[in-house]
Amino acid sequence: MELKTIKRIGVLTSGGDSPGMNAAIRAAVRAGFYYNIEMYGIYRGYEGMILNDIKKLDSGHIGHILERGGTFLKSARSEEFRTVEGRQKAYENLKSHGIDALIVIGGDGSLTGAHLFFKEHGIPAIGLPGTIDNDLSGTDSTIGFDTACNTAIEAIDKIRDTATSHDRLFFVEVMGRDAGFIAINAGIGSAAAAILIPEKKMPIEELVEKLKVRRKRKKTSNIVIVAEGGKSGGAAEIARKVRKYLPHYDTKVTILGHLQRGGAPSSYDRLLASKLGVMAVEGLLAGKYDVMAGIINNKVVYTPIKRAIVDDKSVDEDDFRIAKILST
Amino acid sequence: MELKTIKRIGVLTSGGDSPGMNAAIRAAVRAGFYYNIEMYGIYRGYEGMILNDIKKLDSGHIGHILERGGTFLKSARSEEFRTVEGRQKAYENLKSHGIDALIVIGGDGSLTGAHLFFKEHGIPAIGLPGTIDNDLSGTDSTIGFDTACNTAIEAIDKIRDTATSHDRLFFVEVMGRDAGFIAINAGIGSAAAAILIPEKKMPIEELVEKLKVRRKRKKTSNIVIVAEGGKSGGAAEIARKVRKYLPHYDTKVTILGHLQRGGAPSSYDRLLASKLGVMAVEGLLAGKYDVMAGIINNKVVYTPIKRAIVDDKSVDEDDFRIAKILST
Amino acid sequence: MELKTIKRIGVLTSGGDSPGMNAAIRAAVRAGFYYNIEMYGIYRGYEGMILNDIKKLDSGHIGHILERGGTFLKSARSEEFRTVEGRQKAYENLKSHGIDALIVIGGDGSLTGAHLFFKEHGIPAIGLPGTIDNDLSGTDSTIGFDTACNTAIEAIDKIRDTATSHDRLFFVEVMGRDAGFIAINAGIGSAAAAILIPEKKMPIEELVEKLKVRRKRKKTSNIVIVAEGGKSGGAAEIARKVRKYLPHYDTKVTILGHLQRGGAPSSYDRLLASKLGVMAVEGLLAGKYDVMAGIINNKVVYTPIKRAIVDDKSVDEDDFRIAKILST
Amino acid sequence: MELKTIKRIGVLTSGGDSPGMNAAIRAAVRAGFYYNIEMYGIYRGYEGMILNDIKKLDSGHIGHILERGGTFLKSARSEEFRTVEGRQKAYENLKSHGIDALIVIGGDGSLTGAHLFFKEHGIPAIGLPGTIDNDLSGTDSTIGFDTACNTAIEAIDKIRDTATSHDRLFFVEVMGRDAGFIAINAGIGSAAAAILIPEKKMPIEELVEKLKVRRKRKKTSNIVIVAEGGKSGGAAEIARKVRKYLPHYDTKVTILGHLQRGGAPSSYDRLLASKLGVMAVEGLLAGKYDVMAGIINNKVVYTPIKRAIVDDKSVDEDDFRIAKILST
Repeated sequence: MELKTIKRIGVLTSGGDSPGMNAAIRAAVRAGFYYNIEMYGIYRGYEGMILNDIKKLDSGHIGHILERGGTFLKSARSEEFRTVEGRQKAYENLKSHGIDALIVIGGDGSLTGAHLFFKEHGIPAIGLPGTIDNDLSGTDSTIGFDTACNTAIEAIDKIRDTATSHDRLFFVEVMGRDAGFIAINAGIGSAAAAILIPEKKMPIEELVEKLKVRRKRKKTSNIVIVAEGGKSGGAAEIARKVRKYLPHYDTKVTILGHLQRGGAPSSYDRLLASKLGVMAVEGLLAGKYDVMAGIINNKVVYTPIKRAIVDDKSVDEDDFRIAKILST
Repeated sequence: MELKTIKRIGVLTSGGDSPGMNAAIRAAVRAGFYYNIEMYGIYRGYEGMILNDIKKLDSGHIGHILERGGTFLKSARSEEFRTVEGRQKAYENLKSHGIDALIVIGGDGSLTGAHLFFKEHGIPAIGLPGTIDNDLSGTDSTIGFDTACNTAIEAIDKIRDTATSHDRLFFVEVMGRDAGFIAINAGIGSAAAAILIPEKKMPIEELVEKLKVRRKRKKTSNIVIVAEGGKSGGAAEIARKVRKYLPHYDTKVTILGHLQRGGAPSSYDRLLASKLGVMAVEGLLAGKYDVMAGIINNKVVYTPIKRAIVDDKSVDEDDFRIAKILST
Repeated sequence: MELKTIKRIGVLTSGGDSPGMNAAIRAAVRAGFYYNIEMYGIYRGYEGMILNDIKKLDSGHIGHILERGGTFLKSARSEEFRTVEGRQKAYENLKSHGIDALIVIGGDGSLTGAHLFFKEHGIPAIGLPGTIDNDLSGTDSTIGFDTACNTAIEAIDKIRDTATSHDRLFFVEVMGRDAGFIAINAGIGSAAAAILIPEKKMPIEELVEKLKVRRKRKKTSNIVIVAEGGKSGGAAEIARKVRKYLPHYDTKVTILGHLQRGGAPSSYDRLLASKLGVMAVEGLLAGKYDVMAGIINNKVVYTPIKRAIVDDKSVDEDDFRIAKILST
Repeated sequence: MELKTIKRIGVLTSGGDSPGMNAAIRAAVRAGFYYNIEMYGIYRGYEGMILNDIKKLDSGHIGHILERGGTFLKSARSEEFRTVEGRQKAYENLKSHGIDALIVIGGDGSLTGAHLFFKEHGIPAIGLPGTIDNDLSGTDSTIGFDTACNTAIEAIDKIRDTATSHDRLFFVEVMGRDAGFIAINAGIGSAAAAILIPEKKMPIEELVEKLKVRRKRKKTSNIVIVAEGGKSGGAAEIARKVRKYLPHYDTKVTILGHLQRGGAPSSYDRLLASKLGVMAVEGLLAGKYDVMAGIINNKVVYTPIKRAIVDDKSVDEDDFRIAKILST
């Protein structure tokens, strides 16, 4: 391919936001400037591409954003981009700005969009894994996952204070609709009594038995981590079931919710996002299209988007085994 | 009264725990040692008094607890202490240890217990305001309130990241069943669009109007703070109502819940708790019984427990007015 | 005075920055808009007044700054403003913008400037106490002080981990050149072995004796808090002296330095700054000139700048006494 | 080897402490219990082995320590253990307790001790990489490194607030005597103007040129990260040199120091430490002696101690290149 043709790159964030997206945007823009490329911000993801909400970026736009959660380019879901007409409109807007290539930061839905768009309109696109869920293949970690885990354990540390003071049983629901990564990390990291994740169904009787054993051993802090939408139900539902078996326990439920999506990115996420932002630009310049840039074993790897999405990434069996040993 | 008779003081925490309780216990115990008093820990509040779960404390018990949330003496609610028989049993247990006086750290229910106990059995008791709700008179702030406010705004700062990235409308429920102190502080401190507190009913139409005006002014971060049990209903209920008026808004609800009770106490709460812990001991030695020690205008003040409880402390009108100006 | 004449207010921050300055600016600007006043930002303090670095502010300038440390109006020291000619130039610049009144956020030097300027040129000015040092009269706390105390204790909490693990003796220097407020708060809040503040000279022998007694009692965490420029010297100097007496101790020194000036403001500082920002505008409208707005006992109080500065605010004797009891 | 002979394992932490050591101890002890092994705590590292400061651990010892910085087993340096006689004494103490195997958590010096001890006395030993410096081969990250990076960037975030407010040039010294890992992570993560690490010498003229270019581009936040003991000198020395070239700059120096060693471990370090703690026990049971357990690419790997220590781990060239692009 003619690599030298890339003169203007558009950057967008799409889907649920995650901490580190700003750092990735900044790194991409800064790398673009380094290689004398004009950089454009596409606001509100694919929606902004359709609505032509596109602005040329200068270094003022990316000052003091590395350390901020969220995404200054904003994010949104776009129904219209799912249609051929919507994508046609988007393509024309890109062309009107002379944008040659795209960097799309988001989760599987967002990367699917980039893939489709490349197939239809031939716009070179590189995806970056921007999601707190860590459910993409082709990278050891997604941008935002580490921060979300830190946010979760800091919140659970606080909950443990009150759980222990009252000998209470807490059910804490963390994010991760399809993958229990946050749950398993937060669970091991907070000495949880049990961890319920989508990948594994734990019968309610088993959980109750576990809690009874702990009570006998006089464990005073009993926190059960539940991934939202886990196979055994959400935290509130599980708490309701457990209460039937253990009516004398003082049980409480906390749903951490959206605070897991925000906050200043952790050091890990800043480094990951910064590297990937640079690598997205360098990948485009090297003719790597329709791929997602990720980091495996400290090295940048480009994986075809289709494979990054389709592959089934799930919690390591060994991590689950270790969690079990540690909560005995 | 014969002040010199106090040789053994029992300390307990009761009711909902709050950050800084450990700092208060530590300060009381350390002050006790300073004045050559034997200090006893009564575990699980009044319940432990009845069950005779009482231990002599040494400096090992209070090492490295100042900075920890919760209460190492644990807390519980005691039904039995509400009965004359229960209190009689508790009294006998105290006598069996030779305990002359009590320091009770907790909220209004806990202080009421101390007052009753003093009335019935004549045990000198001083209360310390230990609750995140700030709903006691006789002190500018209760132990734990400042930390809870910090926890709330830190969580809301994270939520704002994602709210702004998606132009979402968030309803965040903070603690404070009877008093909107956390809500008003967290609301002003997080540039909230509106603050709903128990002290003031805001008609849903007024709230909707406020939000519409902000939308017009292109405010991208719209966070409404709701005190639990506020007169207008909880966050989930209010969100449901607002959605009827503003169906096109992307609204979300987060209930911060029990994480507001935990965490390392703030500098303010450490200082407050430390001063009050010392003052509780010095107050008992000076013959101040049936009072709550508090800090008003940087000075320690002893207020009769009955007055500290009965008085109706509510959010300052001026604070509410300022909140309004700032959210316009 | 003719209150209605105020149509344009200039805001500036001056001297060392402190967390909450942005919140104060935002509140003042927002209150100005509420009262239909045009608000102007004067950049880099008095320097910007002389260089005519003055811009009209709109709501875009104050979005998402409440929670950020530092001051977006920037701060600087101005030698030229100390001269009559400099102030004359500054006055002419203000007039050229039609600015009728000033809000000056800063420490004693900055407020002195406002006072002088008012005396010379009659520009109504209200000062707000913006300094981490808490060394101004007329307010219970200055904007930024609470955050600085929290930053200090969080840092010391971390240092204590390593101090305890190695049975080390740490000297930690905190800010507060003329007043030991941060030192006393951080010291009580971190269970310090000793606190050295400018207001009190502690002979090195007394400190050494204190440390020996603690060693005997097997205290494993020995942290001495030193206010910079304290009468007994800085942390490094004191450590050097102590090492001569206690050569076998493993002593370390940490100077917290400028990180105490930054960070997201605490809940307390956000509320304080927000209230004072509104009150500065309302004060000007009510004809209160040449005063500093402060909060005493939860109420806003206007104190003549001259008195706010001249008064000798120093650490409460009682706090010092309590610190002593708690470190025994 | 006869794997079934292991019935009692001793655990110790040695060298500089790091966040996550407690989590590793807890995981090892819990895994030991799971496999019906008696677990012994050896206090103050090799010093305690020589002084026979060894205690049998039960689950009470490891409650609520996972989330705490430092090491409850304490750490110390031992001169005596460097002698044959010292190690002989240590060996006899272990035998007197019937301890069959060792888990040593620490940096290169500590692991060298374990290796020597195994060579001399045949005690099966597994090392765990416990150091904030990340300077051991055989693992992607050492226990404590991620937390130290987070602590550093949080501190630098605060410093940036004040740097930007005053247009100052800050030199911030982070830990890492022989390896620039913290510096490079903190530098990329905080948008540093330049990063000086031991692995690379940057001539002072080059640094000055870089700063001048940034000044021209009106960069308002200029933070230079310096690894302690870097080839170009410490932060104070470099600042002194730079001031000669750029006398008009307002330069400041902050040495982060020991606070980088403490604090609650990050999610990453809790998971890493928990896995490695379990794997240390399982490794010993599987006959893996004289090795260090580490995690590479999410999998546990056992590397001969000699190789883990000797290998020269240094900052990735690519990371350094990216840092350069991002600071242009």
